[in-house]
Amino acid sequence: MKNIIIASTSTIHGTAYLEYLFDELKLFYNDIDDILFIPYARPNGISHDTYTEIATKGLSKIGRKVKGLHTFQNPETAIKEAKAIFVGGGNTFVLLNELYKKNLITSLKQTIKKGIPYLGTSAGSNICGLSIKTTNDMPIVFPKSLNALGVVPFNINPHYIDVDTTLKHMGESRETRINEFHKFNTQPVIGLREGSWLKVDDGSIKLKGTLNARIFEYNKEPYEIETETELNTLK
Amino acid sequence: MKNIIIASTSTIHGTAYLEYLFDELKLFYNDIDDILFIPYARPNGISHDTYTEIATKGLSKIGRKVKGLHTFQNPETAIKEAKAIFVGGGNTFVLLNELYKKNLITSLKQTIKKGIPYLGTSAGSNICGLSIKTTNDMPIVFPKSLNALGVVPFNINPHYIDVDTTLKHMGESRETRINEFHKFNTQPVIGLREGSWLKVDDGSIKLKGTLNARIFEYNKEPYEIETETELNTLK
Repeated sequence: MKNIIIASTSTIHGTAYLEYLFDELKLFYNDIDDILFIPYARPNGISHDTYTEIATKGLSKIGRKVKGLHTFQNPETAIKEAKAIFVGGGNTFVLLNELYKKNLITSLKQTIKKGIPYLGTSAGSNICGLSIKTTNDMPIVFPKSLNALGVVPFNINPHYIDVDTTLKHMGESRETRINEFHKFNTQPVIGLREGSWLKVDDGSIKLKGTLNARIFEYNKEPYEIETETELNTLK
Repeated sequence: MKNIIIASTSTIHGTAYLEYLFDELKLFYNDIDDILFIPYARPNGISHDTYTEIATKGLSKIGRKVKGLHTFQNPETAIKEAKAIFVGGGNTFVLLNELYKKNLITSLKQTIKKGIPYLGTSAGSNICGLSIKTTNDMPIVFPKSLNALGVVPFNINPHYIDVDTTLKHMGESRETRINEFHKFNTQPVIGLREGSWLKVDDGSIKLKGTLNARIFEYNKEPYEIETETELNTLK
């Protein structure tokens, strides 16, 4: 049993926080009112309280209540007893580091495998992959491992962005970076453009949203897939 | 004694490899013909041989010979006996990981502190800082530590790029990422734009090239410095 939304971003340009996902989230959270929010990724370094307020305001628009994991005495128990989980974006290293430090990786995995709805955006999506070695984030802290939840059998690259051939900046393109990843690692990587998400439903993993995604497999030319493509054989 | 060039990039748009640095490098390498090249950062995952050929071709234009560190039986001895060192760009994690695996951090530090000319570009510059926690690269491998050579008392952000307010992509700007760094770390960070370099000469650290650089200090508003600014008090 798995019930996961792995979203490239929380927000697409010109819309409110999570707004593009509201229709999907109404179905996803269905009759669940209370959502456990994990604010550890701290975008812009904001506090857990401030971040939880943002999530609370966002999900109140579809009538859901949110409680921050940081407000529980025992975060492990809170995860085990959660009816639904939302892990927001920010810095993936900061998020994973905190999960390791608080010893929450196993309980989070088990809770997801029980079928508890898990929504991840950006950093919260990155950690669904086998490792966070395809994050775009700056390594501002050093977690004890880059291995992640592995609830899908590949890596995620959120905020995927195409090569801009007009750029005069010499930094590497996203595609170059992911190709370099495959000199040292063999698992597939999904480049999820902003506005796309993966919906994991038991054995099915489908691309959702209006855009294509880009798939990078070891020793293969990268290729595009269309929305609604089934990805359950990708590993 | 220190004699270091810390360059944002090897190549600026529309010019040949290292070309914008040729005048500076003629003085820098002065009467030294043989340069030890460290190819470990492997841009695009290319081999050490291929990368060394690129450096050889580049530096041949100012009459210098290059030998790749990977061709020496004992890399530690090669570093200790080098007359000059050049560490090229690529992936900073890959570079640092290899230096740790081969146990070369101490000898590299000592050689630089003896005054042996060290040129770094991009990843090769990043490792001159206190840590590589302000790299832009993807963490495709996991070094045993992110602590770097620390031959300057701050961190480097090479390929620094300004906020583009026309972008509709929601990934974090470079400035946002460095501000997040300062929620967890206190050392200053120099955002070095492509075309800029730092010249370290004994106690002096000067910004070179035609551009400004952006300085990020803990708990301070970021600010611009002009070329030729002396940075030896920044720490």
